[in-house]
Amino acid sequence: MVKKIVLTENEIPEKWYNIQADMPNPSLPPLHPGTKQPIGPEDLAPLFPMELIKQEVSQERWIDIPEEVRDVYKIWRPTPLFRASNFEKLLGTDCKIYYKYEGTSPSGSHKPNTAVPQAYYNKMEGVKRITTETGAGQWGSALSFACQHFGIECEVYMVKISYEQKPYRKLLMNTWGSKVYPSPTNLTEAGKKVLAANPDSPGSLGIAISEAVERAAMDPDTKYSLGSVLNHVLMHQTIVGQEAILQMEKAGDFPDIVIAPFGGGSNFAGLSFPFLQYKINEGKNIRCIASEPASCPKLTKGQFRYDFGDTVGLTPLLPMYTLGHNFVPAPLHAGGLRYHGAGVLVSQLLKDKLIEAEAVQQLDSFDAGVKFAKAEGILPAPEANHGIASVVNAVNQAKEEGVSKTILFNLCGHGHFDMSAYEAYYAGKLTNHFLSDEELTANLKELEDIPVE
Amino acid sequence: MVKKIVLTENEIPEKWYNIQADMPNPSLPPLHPGTKQPIGPEDLAPLFPMELIKQEVSQERWIDIPEEVRDVYKIWRPTPLFRASNFEKLLGTDCKIYYKYEGTSPSGSHKPNTAVPQAYYNKMEGVKRITTETGAGQWGSALSFACQHFGIECEVYMVKISYEQKPYRKLLMNTWGSKVYPSPTNLTEAGKKVLAANPDSPGSLGIAISEAVERAAMDPDTKYSLGSVLNHVLMHQTIVGQEAILQMEKAGDFPDIVIAPFGGGSNFAGLSFPFLQYKINEGKNIRCIASEPASCPKLTKGQFRYDFGDTVGLTPLLPMYTLGHNFVPAPLHAGGLRYHGAGVLVSQLLKDKLIEAEAVQQLDSFDAGVKFAKAEGILPAPEANHGIASVVNAVNQAKEEGVSKTILFNLCGHGHFDMSAYEAYYAGKLTNHFLSDEELTANLKELEDIPVE
Repeated sequence: MVKKIVLTENEIPEKWYNIQADMPNPSLPPLHPGTKQPIGPEDLAPLFPMELIKQEVSQERWIDIPEEVRDVYKIWRPTPLFRASNFEKLLGTDCKIYYKYEGTSPSGSHKPNTAVPQAYYNKMEGVKRITTETGAGQWGSALSFACQHFGIECEVYMVKISYEQKPYRKLLMNTWGSKVYPSPTNLTEAGKKVLAANPDSPGSLGIAISEAVERAAMDPDTKYSLGSVLNHVLMHQTIVGQEAILQMEKAGDFPDIVIAPFGGGSNFAGLSFPFLQYKINEGKNIRCIASEPASCPKLTKGQFRYDFGDTVGLTPLLPMYTLGHNFVPAPLHAGGLRYHGAGVLVSQLLKDKLIEAEAVQQLDSFDAGVKFAKAEGILPAPEANHGIASVVNAVNQAKEEGVSKTILFNLCGHGHFDMSAYEAYYAGKLTNHFLSDEELTANLKELEDIPVE
Repeated sequence: MVKKIVLTENEIPEKWYNIQADMPNPSLPPLHPGTKQPIGPEDLAPLFPMELIKQEVSQERWIDIPEEVRDVYKIWRPTPLFRASNFEKLLGTDCKIYYKYEGTSPSGSHKPNTAVPQAYYNKMEGVKRITTETGAGQWGSALSFACQHFGIECEVYMVKISYEQKPYRKLLMNTWGSKVYPSPTNLTEAGKKVLAANPDSPGSLGIAISEAVERAAMDPDTKYSLGSVLNHVLMHQTIVGQEAILQMEKAGDFPDIVIAPFGGGSNFAGLSFPFLQYKINEGKNIRCIASEPASCPKLTKGQFRYDFGDTVGLTPLLPMYTLGHNFVPAPLHAGGLRYHGAGVLVSQLLKDKLIEAEAVQQLDSFDAGVKFAKAEGILPAPEANHGIASVVNAVNQAKEEGVSKTILFNLCGHGHFDMSAYEAYYAGKLTNHFLSDEELTANLKELEDIPVE
């Protein structure tokens, strides 16, 4: 049996796949946070280079990957695709399980797939500095690596509680030359506002986004970069699924079920969008399942409506499944999944029932992840563990139905910088979290002034 | 320019290369620690399975890799070979630099290359439990992974100071089901002896080896496993160099200089021995340079003579370059290089001037490693940084001589579990260490009762 399917660097895809060209219903336009009217490219120009703004709204099915970006991709791409044969044995299943492993990148996750082109397009348009936010640090370290490569300064607003709990992620960013600030800071009006209300604020992704966006908006030499949610970010990640299609072909197989963890959407979109082509255009029967934490269940419990991308309300209003931009998720160890909203494209696809979503409890995710590590030898990131728990669910369902399925999931990163999470898990200190209906209702009530659709 | 040269899993070598078949002068035999007479297989049988004892003394050039071992190798092998094009640019050199990257393995270094076959042969001979020592934890986690795979219990004696400083390596071993003890312990006579003399002993590799060996010798169901030094261990690592030869061929190139870090010899032997074939048998002009820490300079300052492999004197006497088995190296951050002796085969080859050695200072090693991380995106293990510093030296020498060289080095592992070392380096808390002639002389004087040759 083939265990690992590798590609040569010549097989790195030459184009990103833009699912906007194939969606039966286009997504609604983003709205200006002040006027609440649809925004144009000029509204985004202070924050993003023009090439990324074009990609954000492009209806072209295929977008060329610049040669300079493919050259950097070669440092870790193509990534391997594995048959999880030992995990299958451990689960005692007839299902065939494959996983695409993105943990071989410099920062250890799929994030550099978009960090590199974002840094490249900024460089091409003369940008000197990029600001961004990061939670657990996966995104911040990916962007630090990319900026270092292209000679751009990088300023990272790191959620304060993560800054304190994960000093090694910060050191990694420093190694690649970034400045890292614990957010909320006194460097921005947004940060000052939060600190005035709560000097001990542990921070949140929404607050950190507000700070990074404000800094970029103030300075013409500085732009902002986001690691998920936006259309162009999701598109850059489709290199993952495209490679996986090639590799599944080499394995002589094709998935019935595609699973990936869900934070803002880029992880899930990266693997699933290229497969969704076959579902949308050829009617192929593929289930694509987004696996989100039960403590932050925007896809399974959130409302589809316009909402801000950040806490303070500086970003455009986006049409998405949301728990409300003031929602602060429980202190989950999968920091990359603690975001209140879902990417616009994924939200529209869920609304149109082309994809599915499933909420996973924290303890189930670690249980699945540790089993996987024992069997396959790779210690997964806590985010990835959510996807693995959904694989276990899919296997159990197949068993109940007496069928055998071919399952492909995205092992989006390793857990080498998340050992404190495993430490807490082994010590019995992790708990499950549910979002109560009361809390959800209260959060959504705060959105009353914002148009629903 | 090709950046990354990958192989398919069919190209994983089918045999290990045994350099004993090609050495112009065979190494001297190991001696019994009591009788000081050459030992036979039966003397080693309490500690090792017979198949490994056979490999230890085999004169066959090629030894078959069992299919079951190759199947596990497929989890991470073949490993990629990279052209360090960005590092070349940063150094401003005409030299071509390549590196073999072993950090993609489950435990993040080259160590599983021998852990897997060692666990396999033990399993085949009905062994229930394996004991071992570990310093920084690279070896302990590799053996834990391998034992978990084959269903063998694993008991790791971890140098106490590392046990306390690197809790995440311990957690990784626990994930793979191992029991990990901070050495010295009260579980062994050797440990009790050390603790009686010094209750606060921080431990050392030599002490931990004594404990692991004693435990294995006590129990017929338990064997002992060593991560470097021994002939069979070095041979298992030759899979690294064999793959590199294939990959250099695909790149249309061949190295003038081969460099690897040096602790006990397996890292260096793994990459260099397959290339040494061409030097020994075909007279090809290849320099193979072992890069050792200046604080533990057995190859550059040690004496070639018989010495024990452990501190207490339980192991056979081995003919090797040594600093004396009571030598306790400075608290260097490259824990994997803090060993008093050099593997027998490497020692003989150095004596015969077929290889070279170079001592590297700790600060130079981190300086080189951080430059490498900035350029190539991979954060190296502190052990690997020593090799990178030697690459920088080779580049500088080529520049002085006005020549261009092709250099290949072993990037033996990533530094994800060594971030405290980088933290100390950035904070200016690391220092250089020299071994004084007085200390060396005093240590070697203690060997007076042991035969020299």
